[in-house]
Amino acid sequence: MGRWEPDARGRLERAALELYAERGFEQTTVAEIAGRAGLTERTFFRHFADKREVLFAGSAVLRDHIVNAVAIAPASATPIDAIAAGLDAAAGMFPLERREHARRRADVIAANADLRERELTKMASYSVALVEALRKRGVGEPAASLTAEIGIAVFKIAFARWLDESNDRGYLDLVRESLAELKTVAAAD
Amino acid sequence: MGRWEPDARGRLERAALELYAERGFEQTTVAEIAGRAGLTERTFFRHFADKREVLFAGSAVLRDHIVNAVAIAPASATPIDAIAAGLDAAAGMFPLERREHARRRADVIAANADLRERELTKMASYSVALVEALRKRGVGEPAASLTAEIGIAVFKIAFARWLDESNDRGYLDLVRESLAELKTVAAAD
Repeated sequence: MGRWEPDARGRLERAALELYAERGFEQTTVAEIAGRAGLTERTFFRHFADKREVLFAGSAVLRDHIVNAVAIAPASATPIDAIAAGLDAAAGMFPLERREHARRRADVIAANADLRERELTKMASYSVALVEALRKRGVGEPAASLTAEIGIAVFKIAFARWLDESNDRGYLDLVRESLAELKTVAAAD
Repeated sequence: MGRWEPDARGRLERAALELYAERGFEQTTVAEIAGRAGLTERTFFRHFADKREVLFAGSAVLRDHIVNAVAIAPASATPIDAIAAGLDAAAGMFPLERREHARRRADVIAANADLRERELTKMASYSVALVEALRKRGVGEPAASLTAEIGIAVFKIAFARWLDESNDRGYLDLVRESLAELKTVAAAD
């Protein structure tokens, strides 16, 4: 093990995103990322399995945050309210000062077909985890699958709006508005 | 051009799915598919660009069916009702006698990571097309994105239930039930 490097993980993450944005994801090597961060490759591999992992390591953390909040929502909460509690809980991961980083990440992913597919696969795994969490709450089918998919849809839309250059509202505000909009949209006859 | 082969496309499709199920998608060659169908490779390539295309050629047709029905829904229809009209219109592509084929296709896709990712990418393209169709109807944001995502969610769930071995209900019945369930789920407070 090498010596302890202050905020090595954060430095590697920032260096990687800078390089992916400048040169493209494919063209960037782990050696270059470590070099830009002033660290060694060895240190890189203590934090990330590969260069793709830098972009997706946060995803499992986010999923666990959401799923745990769904699980511990009051027993009296309806399925959609349990999902809402889950999406609210994600707010801690998306403070305003994180937005520039999130935008850069989204741009890198949008520019690469493999990364876009990885992102879609990740979203599909969120859905599976949410269905499981709802089933444990006693929600039957098709309500569990439908509510999980709706939750993902609300999250995707709120998150895309949060990333939008013209937006200056917070994630929590946007996710709640999307949920309210969902109710309006679904109720219309 | 070779001579006309009666139902060459259907024969190739059935032969391909049989072989993918027996040997796996990766292990099957175009020569084998053509051979099983009693046709030439040349005939295969008149109908499909490659062996993956056999599984996804119907997707563009389905998307156009749905999107066209959304576009021509009465001007008075709400966004969710326009989407419902689109999902209804897809029923013509899913008669009962098509179900065994659709199940086999789903099993082949589920067994291969590349095919699963392709299927997810296809679903994402449906969403983009639906948002566009809703915008042309004058639906603003985030309602258009949200309604499109919800429509895809309803379709995915109804379609998965239609494929389920234990199900013997029709696609139209299931898609309408999922839409009704959506309204119940979204309204709950």
